[in-house]
Amino acid sequence: MAGPKSIVFGVIGIDNLDTPSGKARNVLGGPATYAGLASAIFAPTGLVSVVGSDFPFWRALSRLDTSGVSVAPGKTFRWSGRYRGAMDEAQTLKTELNVFAGYFPQLPESYKGCKVLFLANADPSMQMSVLAQARPDFTILDTMNYWISRKRRQLLRAAARVDCLILNDAEARMLTGEQSLVLAADALASLGPGYVIIKKGEHGALLLGERDGHFFSPSYPVRRVVDPTGAGDSFGGALAGFLASKGSFSERHVRQGIVYAGAVASRTVEGFGTSTLARTKRVQVENRYRAFRKIVLF
Amino acid sequence: MAGPKSIVFGVIGIDNLDTPSGKARNVLGGPATYAGLASAIFAPTGLVSVVGSDFPFWRALSRLDTSGVSVAPGKTFRWSGRYRGAMDEAQTLKTELNVFAGYFPQLPESYKGCKVLFLANADPSMQMSVLAQARPDFTILDTMNYWISRKRRQLLRAAARVDCLILNDAEARMLTGEQSLVLAADALASLGPGYVIIKKGEHGALLLGERDGHFFSPSYPVRRVVDPTGAGDSFGGALAGFLASKGSFSERHVRQGIVYAGAVASRTVEGFGTSTLARTKRVQVENRYRAFRKIVLF
Repeated sequence: MAGPKSIVFGVIGIDNLDTPSGKARNVLGGPATYAGLASAIFAPTGLVSVVGSDFPFWRALSRLDTSGVSVAPGKTFRWSGRYRGAMDEAQTLKTELNVFAGYFPQLPESYKGCKVLFLANADPSMQMSVLAQARPDFTILDTMNYWISRKRRQLLRAAARVDCLILNDAEARMLTGEQSLVLAADALASLGPGYVIIKKGEHGALLLGERDGHFFSPSYPVRRVVDPTGAGDSFGGALAGFLASKGSFSERHVRQGIVYAGAVASRTVEGFGTSTLARTKRVQVENRYRAFRKIVLF
Repeated sequence: MAGPKSIVFGVIGIDNLDTPSGKARNVLGGPATYAGLASAIFAPTGLVSVVGSDFPFWRALSRLDTSGVSVAPGKTFRWSGRYRGAMDEAQTLKTELNVFAGYFPQLPESYKGCKVLFLANADPSMQMSVLAQARPDFTILDTMNYWISRKRRQLLRAAARVDCLILNDAEARMLTGEQSLVLAADALASLGPGYVIIKKGEHGALLLGERDGHFFSPSYPVRRVVDPTGAGDSFGGALAGFLASKGSFSERHVRQGIVYAGAVASRTVEGFGTSTLARTKRVQVENRYRAFRKIVLF
């Protein structure tokens, strides 16, 4: 039995969202949800996570292989966040780990030996446990400020064991102490990963590769950002899914994957929560991919 | 007698600079100086400005036609500025207008009917007086927060009379009241200019053109920014000089001009004041232009 080509590990949650465009309560969220839905646009994708017995959103995950999602007695992870002004940073109002606290990821046999593993933001020790079980051809690691300040040493060790490290600009500065993103990318590459990607939100993404040096992709010019939640996670998941679909991790494919990832993230932020991402089809992503070629043409 | 193809109007000044890389006192500065030196890399360039009888930097302007620079009794314009941290914003410590206060620009006959006029940041009424005299084929208008708050109405009228409006991201948000730069660019285009360019510092530049829509160019990945002073002015001046050299203002040439402008600006910030810009040769700019093609290739 062929397992999913792309595996996404991370939190599946229930969110309360508050943005200048409106509010939403008790909606499906979590990094693994966004990353999984994005990956599935490109390749068969499996999730590794845990939810509580209260979790009501199974149908919304029907695109995904959920045989790696455990159900534990208790409540699902919950997050409440708010965005203001330019919406360039989420303000966390409340986080409840619930069943994610004390979760020990166990991968189904069918997930093992997958093409690409995307480790969404989580405790670096848990991320490494999933990596050891999955034995993927290519691993992408995401993280966040919480783990940079609380589990710095484990995070640095984890970064040395993956193929691609993905952070946002503030996290790259925080982890390296470098103000310049160019120097921050150099410092991150020196940790070990062959590819370093710095996400800059509305300003696009920067790649530092081993052979061809810097690559820069802008953000798609979205006229109205409704809700930035999950933009970064769907970016990472889309990259994973695209690379899994190619089965190649060449610099050229990573560059193309970053453009696809930007295209998917631009869809995500046009709707509340996962609403727009969940109904995004490959053809819509291809249209934006082609638009990117025109946007950088000179 | 053939006059200069590119004309730059604005302040020539004497600066005190303080950056994390060091300090410099009494160095050549001012928007017109940076823009003029940048323009001259591409095309014969004339300056329109005024200096005091104390001005000692004529030799540094020898690349430029200075027949439009008046010498008035008194002191040259002076500016003291400081940069901290990520150096993304200058903190003005002191501005002395000196001879620039009460200056009435008078253009030499040889400047009239030039190809391109670059109106560096200055009082919009003065900018319009220079435009009326120069009768150029193409005009680029730059401005700053000071004029947006103090001469908003005049500035909006000026914007309607030029071909290309160039602002940084904070100014675009301030002038339009839009947080989204995509919407800000739409609002600026509705003022009248066929081209709107929003400079985003280390995040590159966004163009909104009439026909081909959005264009995005990243910043050149400079490893060590020594002094950001004049980056925006040399960006605008380089665009003016490049377009003057082409004698064409097509969207394709404006896109190429923006990439050349980014290449020149990246040289400017690698040295203190005008030091690196002043010794920049066309071949160095062409090398960075070629590097930009690789940076956005996917």
